Amino acid sequence: MRALLFDKELNLSRDYPVPSPGKRESLIRVTHAGICNTDLEILKGYMGFHGIPGHEFVGIVEESSESTLIGKRVVGEINVTCGVCSFCRGHMQNHCKDRSVLGILNKNGAFAEYITLPDRNLHILADSVSDEEAVFVEPLAAAFQILKQVEIRPSSNVCVLGDGKLGILAARVISLKNCTPLLVGNHKEKLALLENNDIRTVLRSDFSENEFDVVIECTGSSEGVKTALDAVRPEGTIIVKTTVAGERAVDLNRLVVNEITMTGSRCGPFPEAIKAIEERRVETADLITGTFALDEFLEAFKLASDRGSLKVIFKIQNKPD
Amino acid sequence: MRALLFDKELNLSRDYPVPSPGKRESLIRVTHAGICNTDLEILKGYMGFHGIPGHEFVGIVEESSESTLIGKRVVGEINVTCGVCSFCRGHMQNHCKDRSVLGILNKNGAFAEYITLPDRNLHILADSVSDEEAVFVEPLAAAFQILKQVEIRPSSNVCVLGDGKLGILAARVISLKNCTPLLVGNHKEKLALLENNDIRTVLRSDFSENEFDVVIECTGSSEGVKTALDAVRPEGTIIVKTTVAGERAVDLNRLVVNEITMTGSRCGPFPEAIKAIEERRVETADLITGTFALDEFLEAFKLASDRGSLKVIFKIQNKPD
Repeated sequence: MRALLFDKELNLSRDYPVPSPGKRESLIRVTHAGICNTDLEILKGYMGFHGIPGHEFVGIVEESSESTLIGKRVVGEINVTCGVCSFCRGHMQNHCKDRSVLGILNKNGAFAEYITLPDRNLHILADSVSDEEAVFVEPLAAAFQILKQVEIRPSSNVCVLGDGKLGILAARVISLKNCTPLLVGNHKEKLALLENNDIRTVLRSDFSENEFDVVIECTGSSEGVKTALDAVRPEGTIIVKTTVAGERAVDLNRLVVNEITMTGSRCGPFPEAIKAIEERRVETADLITGTFALDEFLEAFKLASDRGSLKVIFKIQNKPD
Repeated sequence: MRALLFDKELNLSRDYPVPSPGKRESLIRVTHAGICNTDLEILKGYMGFHGIPGHEFVGIVEESSESTLIGKRVVGEINVTCGVCSFCRGHMQNHCKDRSVLGILNKNGAFAEYITLPDRNLHILADSVSDEEAVFVEPLAAAFQILKQVEIRPSSNVCVLGDGKLGILAARVISLKNCTPLLVGNHKEKLALLENNDIRTVLRSDFSENEFDVVIECTGSSEGVKTALDAVRPEGTIIVKTTVAGERAVDLNRLVVNEITMTGSRCGPFPEAIKAIEERRVETADLITGTFALDEFLEAFKLASDRGSLKVIFKIQNKPD
């Protein structure tokens, strides 16, 4: 099969072996896959990953130990877990000690014609959800995770830092709680996508508000947490989404003196994200900057790395073998 | 009056003016005052404080606008607040924007024969509480704050990092929840104070446990938060107590990937601390390393700075003017 293979650099392989599904696994023909900031970080060495990256995908189940899945269009949760460790048994499967993660940790990902995933990771999509929308399920789930970690009320004063894909999705998810967040970003044209009655926006250079109850840090920058500490009120909460290579210097005295809570946030609940897309409660179509064939990967990654870009998608024109 | 005055260095003044209580304030004759790690940090430049340090005290009210306080033995909350800002009105008085803090921020403290504090900051002590015990009310309240910030159950797997005064008090407070915390410290003789059925102890050099539900960081060291990140489980909570000069480098990727919550913790509830001492539920007498007169301040601070020391107390032999 064709696949993008990362080993110090990214190359297109045209004859990579099609993976074989294990017990209780499915073989999925990938139709679309999105490029995430984590993929860009992986290409810089994050996680020390070697193999096929890509974890935001939609595809058709071709083989499965679960017959009801065969032929179905699915998205899939990216953590492949052991099911038996204390975290798996304690309803913290995403933190399984022995996990692999699709396209991120010890498992080939979705920038390829085929992937395998455990049957239990898969979610069947309604026909009303387009492939392009389905690619957003994984990042939208990560945005919904915020609502599981901090209570957002209509009266909450919430600030989202970062006008990238995740920041915009986070702001849209926050606004579902009848709360009007402020989105802080560097790009007028991105902020323009958000400006409506449910979300306020401001350019980072004009941003001076503080005393927010909740600050959602989605900047993708090592400086984002500092800005968040400036913006949050005493006893307020910072949700940290950004992973960047290396340690970050933080004024923890401020955390102590102001009794701030800082919570890391990673993957989220797929069912909530799928439902929100099905019910047209979160828009995603306006976040697509470009769609490319797998062969055009150099151009695709160049565009995805552009700071003005949002989501870049691979349309994988594969045919069943 | 006699007072320890800090301005680049600490000196004893013998004729410092007795402070005048303002409206709704009391004049308190200090009988005992404890040296806290924060005082040691102040002497290194923390908070840029100049004036009389000291914030752990017990004393007798000599003058007050509240007649029922006169002659009473009291301890006092250290934050002097405006009462009208959004934080004061929002039950976050300790975070008042316009606050001063006894012996820490814009207000002379308790290493002196007299202090003033607002009447509403004062708590009258029962006769059963000794002066030496009363000096521990403020740090014990800071330990009780932990119980307001994270739920501790009998089954919680809790680790306290640091065998200083605050670490030991924190471990004792945690054990009140019928939970058996592990205290990690550098000093055999301090850990020996704690070893009983309610608290486990281990030397830092022998410490390798992890996956704690809750880690209480009381090391007083800039490395403490790193150790806490090693020790806490995914989705676990770190309570950060340590303030040290400067920023701290933290692996925030770990916070994000493991979805850890880190909460800063400062002052706490005086009533809980007073009640626990009254009811003899938290021992403090064994934490006193030495008692000194104000004139012996050099010796007192030298002993307090010794890593093997716990609480050093000034017995302030003053007489009413």
